[in-house]
Amino acid sequence: MRVCVAGAGAIGSLFAAHLTRVAEVSALVRREGHARGLRQQGLRVSGRGDFTARLEAATSPDALDVPDFVIVACKGTDLDAVGSQLHGHWPDALLMTVQNGIGADEVIGRHGDWRQLAAVTFMSGTRHSDTNIEYVLDTATWIGPARGATPVDAREIADLIVAAGLKAEAFDDLRPAQWSKLIFNATVNTVAALTGLPHDTHFAALHNPDDLGHLVRALMDEGKAVAAAAGIELGEDPWEMNVLATKRGSAHYPSMLEDVEAHRRTEIDMITGALVRQARRLGVPVPLHETMERLIKAKEDSWA
Amino acid sequence: MRVCVAGAGAIGSLFAAHLTRVAEVSALVRREGHARGLRQQGLRVSGRGDFTARLEAATSPDALDVPDFVIVACKGTDLDAVGSQLHGHWPDALLMTVQNGIGADEVIGRHGDWRQLAAVTFMSGTRHSDTNIEYVLDTATWIGPARGATPVDAREIADLIVAAGLKAEAFDDLRPAQWSKLIFNATVNTVAALTGLPHDTHFAALHNPDDLGHLVRALMDEGKAVAAAAGIELGEDPWEMNVLATKRGSAHYPSMLEDVEAHRRTEIDMITGALVRQARRLGVPVPLHETMERLIKAKEDSWA
Repeated sequence: MRVCVAGAGAIGSLFAAHLTRVAEVSALVRREGHARGLRQQGLRVSGRGDFTARLEAATSPDALDVPDFVIVACKGTDLDAVGSQLHGHWPDALLMTVQNGIGADEVIGRHGDWRQLAAVTFMSGTRHSDTNIEYVLDTATWIGPARGATPVDAREIADLIVAAGLKAEAFDDLRPAQWSKLIFNATVNTVAALTGLPHDTHFAALHNPDDLGHLVRALMDEGKAVAAAAGIELGEDPWEMNVLATKRGSAHYPSMLEDVEAHRRTEIDMITGALVRQARRLGVPVPLHETMERLIKAKEDSWA
Repeated sequence: MRVCVAGAGAIGSLFAAHLTRVAEVSALVRREGHARGLRQQGLRVSGRGDFTARLEAATSPDALDVPDFVIVACKGTDLDAVGSQLHGHWPDALLMTVQNGIGADEVIGRHGDWRQLAAVTFMSGTRHSDTNIEYVLDTATWIGPARGATPVDAREIADLIVAAGLKAEAFDDLRPAQWSKLIFNATVNTVAALTGLPHDTHFAALHNPDDLGHLVRALMDEGKAVAAAAGIELGEDPWEMNVLATKRGSAHYPSMLEDVEAHRRTEIDMITGALVRQARRLGVPVPLHETMERLIKAKEDSWA
């Protein structure tokens, strides 16, 4: 089987490196220096793994063998650019988007009629360089059918990823999981990005009226009301995910906080923006998520 | 007349320097180096002024002549410390607090039975060093009676300040002005501190649903509901103050944004905190101000 990973950030690199154990892997990246580094030095995994993977890499689909399966692992803010790049290529390939938020399959779908799976991933890594990725959290990737793909496709890809040494699970309907993570991310990412706090015990603190946990819970309650109005029965409860995660000890650094500190555009449109759009469509008031969206967008403007 | 200015930041320095034209002025400051600098070099005013004022300065009330009038011009976060320092001194002096927010007179009142005026000031300056202050905005200071002082006291002090070359106005009841500025500050300071934006045109933008003006207006509407429940008829409308200020062209840098950038404790307790406490007492829901308070306090924790 031939697999291409489009976008080799932390998540894409983890998929690419592990999948070399069970497939021929290529990476489609934006910078020529990145592609050359991967071709010449391979991709080194540290942390929970300890190996160097060999793979092809290029900045154009034309330079790569036609893959059977493509993981679109770029950031949400790059989805449209990656979709444009894939346009007209590899019509028979199965694609899988793995961005935060919801709606990634729709963005890619505007560029071609590929069969698509959608995934949410809970694994995490720290990218030390183009060719060195630290595997941090070995939690699962959840996979379900999106446009044209089937539950059988989802199970086959979950099996492939498990065979590669990562955790994965297939669902006939991914939306309950996707929405749980959407609500979790819309809350934790924006609160972290605005306060500068990693996802630590502050997020579950409810002792004093001005404790942050009250805001976190209120944001999640707004999100749950939107999910209920959309007829989605949530998978895990976002507040319980939050409490559990903050008890783990090592505080996770949410990607939106990293974006803000690096003065990069955030994924706010695909996360909180997506939730707010659904809320407006359904007539559910979400004043706190609107507040977070407006603050993050204004923050982006502050360094523009 | 003898005047002492307790706290010589931007506002305190502007009062001290100008008042030397009509009174004997001393400054009570925290650092000995600051006092020595003022004694030896005087206080230079640039910007809208161009003169150097001569004044006494010390770090203890014992080292200063007994004043008739004391302007407590420290930051809200230092009020309690300044009150402690004044405790037992100058029982016949008239005091005037000039902090952001509301409740400064109560904090000082815990340390002694001085007659007190309260003031809100709209003038601004940039402190370039201990002995060099740039006079930026020559807008007015509004003065009213607080604990034990009378409208006549307020008018006398307003006249003194006007004679010194600054703008001032006396009110029989300061609360309408105080609350207008409280609502304005609780909104503009927290939004600026969280987004990193100075008070610029973003704050009045209402074009798109995710524009910041919607948040600013919603925060001000919450504040107005609290004022109405407290029986206060507002002076200026905070939203109009906001629109006017953002049209002025040169974007003002709110003090809470400066505090956050310097990783200093902010005045959140005296501004948004005061508004939220009043709202709870009166049973008025203020979910957006609670959100801003929780985010700012968590931000302070992020560098603690």
